[in-house]
Amino acid sequence: MAIGEFAFIAKHLRPLAAGVPGALGLQDDAALLDPAPGALLVLTKDAMVAGVHFLADDPPAQIAQKLLRVNLSDLAAMGAAPLGYLLALARAKETSEAWLAEFCRGLAADQAEFGIGLLGGDTVSTPGPLTLSLTAIGAVPKGEALRRSTARPGDDIWISGTIGDGALGLKVLQGELEAPPEARAYLIARYRLPCPRLALGQALRGLASAALDVSDGLLADLGHILETSQLGAEIRADALPLSPAARALPGARAAALAGGDDYELLFTAAPERRPRIEALARELAVPLTRIGRTDAHSGLRALDQEGREISIAATGWQHF
Amino acid sequence: MAIGEFAFIAKHLRPLAAGVPGALGLQDDAALLDPAPGALLVLTKDAMVAGVHFLADDPPAQIAQKLLRVNLSDLAAMGAAPLGYLLALARAKETSEAWLAEFCRGLAADQAEFGIGLLGGDTVSTPGPLTLSLTAIGAVPKGEALRRSTARPGDDIWISGTIGDGALGLKVLQGELEAPPEARAYLIARYRLPCPRLALGQALRGLASAALDVSDGLLADLGHILETSQLGAEIRADALPLSPAARALPGARAAALAGGDDYELLFTAAPERRPRIEALARELAVPLTRIGRTDAHSGLRALDQEGREISIAATGWQHF
Repeated sequence: MAIGEFAFIAKHLRPLAAGVPGALGLQDDAALLDPAPGALLVLTKDAMVAGVHFLADDPPAQIAQKLLRVNLSDLAAMGAAPLGYLLALARAKETSEAWLAEFCRGLAADQAEFGIGLLGGDTVSTPGPLTLSLTAIGAVPKGEALRRSTARPGDDIWISGTIGDGALGLKVLQGELEAPPEARAYLIARYRLPCPRLALGQALRGLASAALDVSDGLLADLGHILETSQLGAEIRADALPLSPAARALPGARAAALAGGDDYELLFTAAPERRPRIEALARELAVPLTRIGRTDAHSGLRALDQEGREISIAATGWQHF
Repeated sequence: MAIGEFAFIAKHLRPLAAGVPGALGLQDDAALLDPAPGALLVLTKDAMVAGVHFLADDPPAQIAQKLLRVNLSDLAAMGAAPLGYLLALARAKETSEAWLAEFCRGLAADQAEFGIGLLGGDTVSTPGPLTLSLTAIGAVPKGEALRRSTARPGDDIWISGTIGDGALGLKVLQGELEAPPEARAYLIARYRLPCPRLALGQALRGLASAALDVSDGLLADLGHILETSQLGAEIRADALPLSPAARALPGARAAALAGGDDYELLFTAAPERRPRIEALARELAVPLTRIGRTDAHSGLRALDQEGREISIAATGWQHF
């Protein structure tokens, strides 16, 4: 081990907690958090393992940012504003101090980007691969949290940004897909550095009937909304918003339907909300695309541009 | 892998979140927590790795309970009442469903014991050893959290329960120490199943000037209080409370001074608080022992029963 636990905390982690109210300089047994009156706390926790959730030679700063951002994306999906986070880091034998310093540099950059700080956590050693776990804490006004189970029949189904980029970026990185240099850089960046839709999530409070972030894949995640809301839906595969980089590649539509790692917000809203949602897209400069509609039947149907049903089974990313 | 991720969540984790307000049946992206008006949230996160923080053949239910309890002990040290927890579990290739079921049985038992529930988390797979991370959330009235940095010169130094048992239990388990069967069972139980001093921690609000839980070892942890409070102290090694099981064994006093894993509360309080603290010990049926006093000098001195100084360097658990 290049650097001892206490030295690592003092040199690299304590600066991330400097000036953070309640982090107590990382010197106490726990952190304190003073929620605003009338706020609900929103808590989420994701784990990532080297070789499973990120590639061993990914830039350490971007690993840190992805870990933080996938958690912030969960907060965004509930309409919450982020307050802070706790980090558990199990260092592998080969984890160098330079790697840790770069990792912490990534955290520092995103702390500034998202206006949050490190509250506490734990650092340990492992004989296995580097393992990370992050707990993010946010706040949402009471009664306004966005949920998965509250979609209604006849709601529009919306998606933010473009989808499929994350899954295509991973394929490019793994050497399974060829792409022109510019498209390649764009797709890899989308895979490594998702953009949590925090402003959008908060703006959708009172506007969306249900929401989540797309991490398992559009069809799987829409399935979560439909299952918990006890609804069915029809989506138009040709309406899916693809980036210019993705559009030129084979398998782009399959990646959009079934690939994960997009961290865009998928949400439902009553049709009379359309003007407000379209205004919101302009205000936030985030594309918001209507891709279908919920119904009281059960099951999810995807249609092509001629209105013919696409077999959902055939949209599996691996087999398309 | 014996059981898929979604099946594991549905079968083993969802019951742990049943009826927990804000866990939302583990179906949403994050959990919701509604803090009482005037409460500060207290957040702590500890990680444990198989082969490092617990032994591979430890009973899975007790691994779960220890993971939960070391976090609850951090809440106790700040005077907080526990509200709930999030769990990240990275399963190893060899982790069986039977192991996971037993692990969750341990969580269920302690949820009932401590009146808390599972709020959320993440389950992933790892090619390395089973790795666990738990985030515990508690609440403490504003302005009443116990801290490390707030001891004053001339305060009494107190310890709850008995100390050294955890470190001796580990030595017994590792075959480095022989003990009679009854003492053996007692010490192993103390190592595997620490008892977070939650009622004591809450009762010490407004009474103790500083507090923490003993996890690194008495001398090291007292050092944390002294360093952050900028004080020195003198402790009486012969005053350390040893269990009958520990007292009969070689190295018991060294284990009490320098061994960790006790999770007892170490706290300071003004001398005029003695009657109230002694009354508290009777009320809670928890032994509370005065072991020394802080002073305005720097450094920590340990004295033997004749008042002679013991070399602190010589108390290192490994070398005593």
